[in-house]
Amino acid sequence: MLKLDFHPAGRHFLQIPGPSPVPDRILRAMSYPTIDHRGPEFGALGRSVLDGIKKIFKTQHPVVIYGASGTGAWEAALCNILSPGDTVLMFETGHFATLWKKMAENLGLKPEFLGLPGIEGWRNGVQAHMIEERLRADTGHKIKAVCIVHNETSTGVTSDVAAVRRAIDAAGHPALFLVDTISSLACVDYRHDEWGVDVTVSGSQKGLMLPPGISFNAVSPKALAASESATLPRSYWGWKEIIESNKTGYWPYTPNTNLLYALQEAIEMILGEGLDNVVARHVRLGEACRRAVRAWGLEIQCLDPAVYSPVLTGVMMPDGVDADAVRKVIYERFNMSLGMGLGKMKGRMFRIGHLGDCNDLTLMATLAGCEMGLQLAGISLAESGLPAAMSFIAGESELAGLRAAA
Amino acid sequence: MLKLDFHPAGRHFLQIPGPSPVPDRILRAMSYPTIDHRGPEFGALGRSVLDGIKKIFKTQHPVVIYGASGTGAWEAALCNILSPGDTVLMFETGHFATLWKKMAENLGLKPEFLGLPGIEGWRNGVQAHMIEERLRADTGHKIKAVCIVHNETSTGVTSDVAAVRRAIDAAGHPALFLVDTISSLACVDYRHDEWGVDVTVSGSQKGLMLPPGISFNAVSPKALAASESATLPRSYWGWKEIIESNKTGYWPYTPNTNLLYALQEAIEMILGEGLDNVVARHVRLGEACRRAVRAWGLEIQCLDPAVYSPVLTGVMMPDGVDADAVRKVIYERFNMSLGMGLGKMKGRMFRIGHLGDCNDLTLMATLAGCEMGLQLAGISLAESGLPAAMSFIAGESELAGLRAAA
Amino acid sequence: MLKLDFHPAGRHFLQIPGPSPVPDRILRAMSYPTIDHRGPEFGALGRSVLDGIKKIFKTQHPVVIYGASGTGAWEAALCNILSPGDTVLMFETGHFATLWKKMAENLGLKPEFLGLPGIEGWRNGVQAHMIEERLRADTGHKIKAVCIVHNETSTGVTSDVAAVRRAIDAAGHPALFLVDTISSLACVDYRHDEWGVDVTVSGSQKGLMLPPGISFNAVSPKALAASESATLPRSYWGWKEIIESNKTGYWPYTPNTNLLYALQEAIEMILGEGLDNVVARHVRLGEACRRAVRAWGLEIQCLDPAVYSPVLTGVMMPDGVDADAVRKVIYERFNMSLGMGLGKMKGRMFRIGHLGDCNDLTLMATLAGCEMGLQLAGISLAESGLPAAMSFIAGESELAGLRAAA
Amino acid sequence: MLKLDFHPAGRHFLQIPGPSPVPDRILRAMSYPTIDHRGPEFGALGRSVLDGIKKIFKTQHPVVIYGASGTGAWEAALCNILSPGDTVLMFETGHFATLWKKMAENLGLKPEFLGLPGIEGWRNGVQAHMIEERLRADTGHKIKAVCIVHNETSTGVTSDVAAVRRAIDAAGHPALFLVDTISSLACVDYRHDEWGVDVTVSGSQKGLMLPPGISFNAVSPKALAASESATLPRSYWGWKEIIESNKTGYWPYTPNTNLLYALQEAIEMILGEGLDNVVARHVRLGEACRRAVRAWGLEIQCLDPAVYSPVLTGVMMPDGVDADAVRKVIYERFNMSLGMGLGKMKGRMFRIGHLGDCNDLTLMATLAGCEMGLQLAGISLAESGLPAAMSFIAGESELAGLRAAA
Repeated sequence: MLKLDFHPAGRHFLQIPGPSPVPDRILRAMSYPTIDHRGPEFGALGRSVLDGIKKIFKTQHPVVIYGASGTGAWEAALCNILSPGDTVLMFETGHFATLWKKMAENLGLKPEFLGLPGIEGWRNGVQAHMIEERLRADTGHKIKAVCIVHNETSTGVTSDVAAVRRAIDAAGHPALFLVDTISSLACVDYRHDEWGVDVTVSGSQKGLMLPPGISFNAVSPKALAASESATLPRSYWGWKEIIESNKTGYWPYTPNTNLLYALQEAIEMILGEGLDNVVARHVRLGEACRRAVRAWGLEIQCLDPAVYSPVLTGVMMPDGVDADAVRKVIYERFNMSLGMGLGKMKGRMFRIGHLGDCNDLTLMATLAGCEMGLQLAGISLAESGLPAAMSFIAGESELAGLRAAA
Repeated sequence: MLKLDFHPAGRHFLQIPGPSPVPDRILRAMSYPTIDHRGPEFGALGRSVLDGIKKIFKTQHPVVIYGASGTGAWEAALCNILSPGDTVLMFETGHFATLWKKMAENLGLKPEFLGLPGIEGWRNGVQAHMIEERLRADTGHKIKAVCIVHNETSTGVTSDVAAVRRAIDAAGHPALFLVDTISSLACVDYRHDEWGVDVTVSGSQKGLMLPPGISFNAVSPKALAASESATLPRSYWGWKEIIESNKTGYWPYTPNTNLLYALQEAIEMILGEGLDNVVARHVRLGEACRRAVRAWGLEIQCLDPAVYSPVLTGVMMPDGVDADAVRKVIYERFNMSLGMGLGKMKGRMFRIGHLGDCNDLTLMATLAGCEMGLQLAGISLAESGLPAAMSFIAGESELAGLRAAA
Repeated sequence: MLKLDFHPAGRHFLQIPGPSPVPDRILRAMSYPTIDHRGPEFGALGRSVLDGIKKIFKTQHPVVIYGASGTGAWEAALCNILSPGDTVLMFETGHFATLWKKMAENLGLKPEFLGLPGIEGWRNGVQAHMIEERLRADTGHKIKAVCIVHNETSTGVTSDVAAVRRAIDAAGHPALFLVDTISSLACVDYRHDEWGVDVTVSGSQKGLMLPPGISFNAVSPKALAASESATLPRSYWGWKEIIESNKTGYWPYTPNTNLLYALQEAIEMILGEGLDNVVARHVRLGEACRRAVRAWGLEIQCLDPAVYSPVLTGVMMPDGVDADAVRKVIYERFNMSLGMGLGKMKGRMFRIGHLGDCNDLTLMATLAGCEMGLQLAGISLAESGLPAAMSFIAGESELAGLRAAA
Repeated sequence: MLKLDFHPAGRHFLQIPGPSPVPDRILRAMSYPTIDHRGPEFGALGRSVLDGIKKIFKTQHPVVIYGASGTGAWEAALCNILSPGDTVLMFETGHFATLWKKMAENLGLKPEFLGLPGIEGWRNGVQAHMIEERLRADTGHKIKAVCIVHNETSTGVTSDVAAVRRAIDAAGHPALFLVDTISSLACVDYRHDEWGVDVTVSGSQKGLMLPPGISFNAVSPKALAASESATLPRSYWGWKEIIESNKTGYWPYTPNTNLLYALQEAIEMILGEGLDNVVARHVRLGEACRRAVRAWGLEIQCLDPAVYSPVLTGVMMPDGVDADAVRKVIYERFNMSLGMGLGKMKGRMFRIGHLGDCNDLTLMATLAGCEMGLQLAGISLAESGLPAAMSFIAGESELAGLRAAA
């Protein structure tokens, strides 16, 4: 094995907003010998994961699993339901919303990109009212789909999916509704069926705690119907053949067997903890993280407290400070990886991931690493952030204890 | 973990023609903790695998690594260099050649499907002279690409790639040359640059001994140039952005980190054994396998000894015997998986994989399992195949010993 | 990791009579993170393995688990129940019986070593009538213990434990009865309680399919009572403190946590297959192996068909042939490890292990490797052994099928 | 696998003073398939670890590796060099010194147990002057060995080994010098040869970062000579046969192959980081931990700053607080294991391990868990300990940066 030992001794803290740290149970499950993807054991595995994953998306309808990164699942979502030249309404919430829009262009679609002006768009969530207005104006129903990102991994802002659903309904518009939950699934409350989402796109390496390599399309009956007439060319991504083959637990082409072992284990872990408990843990960690950031006297990227992300926190640097230099100090001295500023935010902030297999003490370590690194980088902080974070966490624990005792 | 213990005690023999058994070294490498795909350690890994994989393809030019199965890499090869409505010349050698052709249709291309009539096409290799004739007739150069499968996984027939190259040259035709080496790479002699191939498609789960999940396009400068003007929509598969990002060892979107660990290990193993030695081992195992089949008095699917596959052997059943019933006996009694007959061959033959991490004794076990299973299924065999196989292997070993002693 | 790649490509066949190949499930279980050996999770693990292991020994009484090889468990058995200068009756069945006797001397005991003359003793089992005679003569009950080896790993001879029990009873002698089952437990029928054994010694790396590192004393109430007055110094090996601590699932000193994970998995696998089925599988493999040896025209070391070992087969070389040279050829050319001749048998035979995670096809591979190696070493064989072995195995499978169908 | 999921989600923090967390590299190395312990690959492994481990003990003389816990290595040290009834001088520093003394009694030796009165002895290190006085008084040289514990795992006190060596020399006494480094090796500066230690006892599961299961005796020529005439019975523990067999890299009985893989990896990791750097890291973490404890206003168990342990810190509870109740809160709420008070300290303190694969951020997480747990348990703390610890660590990092830049 190539030696990859660039950092100091001891456990590395992978606190980027994904890939999130893969739990030992999952790494072990993934390393079981590959089996025949046409044999009876594989069928049992296939049926089990295809059934289990529906519970995570909160859907009764098919979830298609791709051997691909989340980017592939974006493409799949678009090309299964749209035709060349179709207009899609997208909303600029950050780097990933922008990339998805760029992909739509690459595929020959015509995206309209709504958004707040300048950097504002990257510090707030989707504005449902703007979508409603635009749809109302589209009396000819030229817009075929509305696409939003549930949790912007580049900013730490989560959008209100149900509000967008209501906006579409209020406008009485027939557009399909597509939501990217790549970094929110199994971290943030999400309800594919209840919120009337037509295609939910997701990935493996965030809340599902898997290595990257598989991704998802949860597909509503309406989306499935739309795919019958959509004419964007597609083969690898085609839902129809996959869903047909999935009925018996198999795939039309060779699936990622070892990642499906891992997925099986992840589903067991998440349902074992309880999906709602998993979400509550993310919410708690997010709040603790923000309390530390505020104690430091630094600004949180997300400006709207209603849509703070439970997945990651964007920390703005004071003027003149290069966020990447801070990240480098932290990486080299404290053996921790943080997320860099992307796109418009490059160098202006860093991102703390607190998702997936993260718990209270891992977050405390993370905050300590940030705090020491900020100090070493010469940034003067208002006060230590740890006491604020600990006090919140201990308080939450006390409440949990009181509830358990009651 | 879901219990997947349908078979009897002891090690399972996974003797399908891929996924091939993943060596322990590779499974361990794959289970290392996922790292930051934007950090310095990842860059070192990326540069190492991107450099190493070129040696396996015998190319100096870029090899694009996809998070996808081989089917995805087929699509990538087509959509990067072709435009809607383009004619491509394909050759029917079996099930996978047929699937590739079907994909071309799905993508809006116009495949012409050459081939020998009926079942003949599935028992012989690509007929280079037929390709030459067709290209000579295409004076208007409507044909934009010639696509062949190097080793037909469904039949156990390997085609002569260099001969097809010569045919294209003899016809003086400018078509791009695409070769699927999904099941031949690192099993059969292959030379991307020397044979003037424009796009070589390959996968992870055969000669590279990895789990499924990544796949490849080796790309010639001519193909890269063609991609500038090709208009099939593409985003996930687009070479340009990936090759640009690969220059520093990174990917434009989240790569399959853990499978890249595995790939690094596989490249080390293959180059450590010596790529030519690896090929020679496959050739030896193929011959040993066929000697056993002949001793049994059964027919080998491949009719042309010049293109016997070193990767797998298709074994024809006597009339009236259901090959899948034989496979079931072998699976249930002897804990071994064999490949089923696909497409036109369904139920008429089974396929013995002898690829990847296979060695002499593993093949002997495999042949013993087949022989006992055939007997239990009531097929009367001419004689035991093991002595014939062993005698060949021992003779080869003796030769190797003599050479080593000399 | 130090590179340990001395052998050719592909899976190594570890066909020594122990350590036996460790199944993937067990290797994975063993590699889970070490936990606090004083925490609640460890207690659950401890109680589970201490309970499960009793089923493998077929006892209701305590089984003590040592962090030590089987040699340590030999010492534990002796020093817990004996006092300096005590006479013990041992029986020479081979190398390991001889080593145990040497250990008794080292510990200050007085072993009497019964046995058949010369090499005869190494080709037959324990002669119960000789033990009975000797005990009858010991009217003063100077002999404190009778010690035998159930399966002689150095010879491939299994002794009749129940017969020795009957011999002790027939002589009306109060000696304690100690049996070494290091290489027989979970391979050969064994019944600690029913056969009135006082201390059963065993190890991890044979039928239990674990790596070496833990070993066992199953202890009868009579043995436990004897330990109260025995005066050989002991501390690490002392039963009393361990059994007391085990009541809650813990150990008085740090236990081998990761091997206990592995033991838990092994017990699940063995009881899942069914202990009797495991034994029947070993019996079948032993017979198949011997049929091949006879077909080759070579001699089986064990002369008494009543006590053939289901665990391993000792294969005698023709005069003038160096067995270790044959083993070397097989190791280097066929990537298989066989057991060497030990003690009196050095160079005169080799040992084929067919124990633990072994199944039909693994044995076939093993026999093929032996056959080809013997030929390469210049030994002329009567005929191929594979057909004989396969015919037996296929017949057994057919019977199993008939039974299943009935 | 038995489900062992008693604690909340996310990574468990195993902050007991051993077993310490096993790094992923070591767990992976340990899970490689077991090989033939008599084959050439094993010999290479054996020679490599036997050579490498000497560097960790800083000795040129043999280091014997046992398949046993550290308790077994204690017994080995005593029984190889002593005879029944021999007097040994031991020093009470805590629970483990007391257990070793009890073992000496069990083995029929006559330990004299020096020490400071009452609880004082458990809060200070070995008093070299008391040993010197006692040896001077022993004009008849009845005392055959002096035995001390280098780092008392039960108290967090490290003793001055060199001072005891000087005391023995000053007294001109020929007693052998035995040192238990079970929890200090590869954590605290240690020099077997330079300090004239005759037998250094150690274990795997602390500074070596391995799972429990192997242990060590580093043996001086003087000790080896003494073993020739020592008469305590011994077999499993006998140095002679092992050292003889080790010369070629093998063992007289089955060694713990998989733990030797792990040991090989651990030696590579420790020497890769640099043994002195490893020790410096432990010293830094110890100081950071104590600064937090002082900030809390709690007492450190060790009263003598000259012998603070870099391995663990004993934290005294205020009167009336049950330390085990605090530990329980921390375990259940924060998924962290701490060491309990042992023997005389039961319930009065807990122990924070900061050894082995521990780094700055892991310690910060640990301190945060302690701090929150103490608060939840109702203990009022003077102030948060994290700022004090972080300020020290950041200062150390700054110094390291300055040094690196210079």
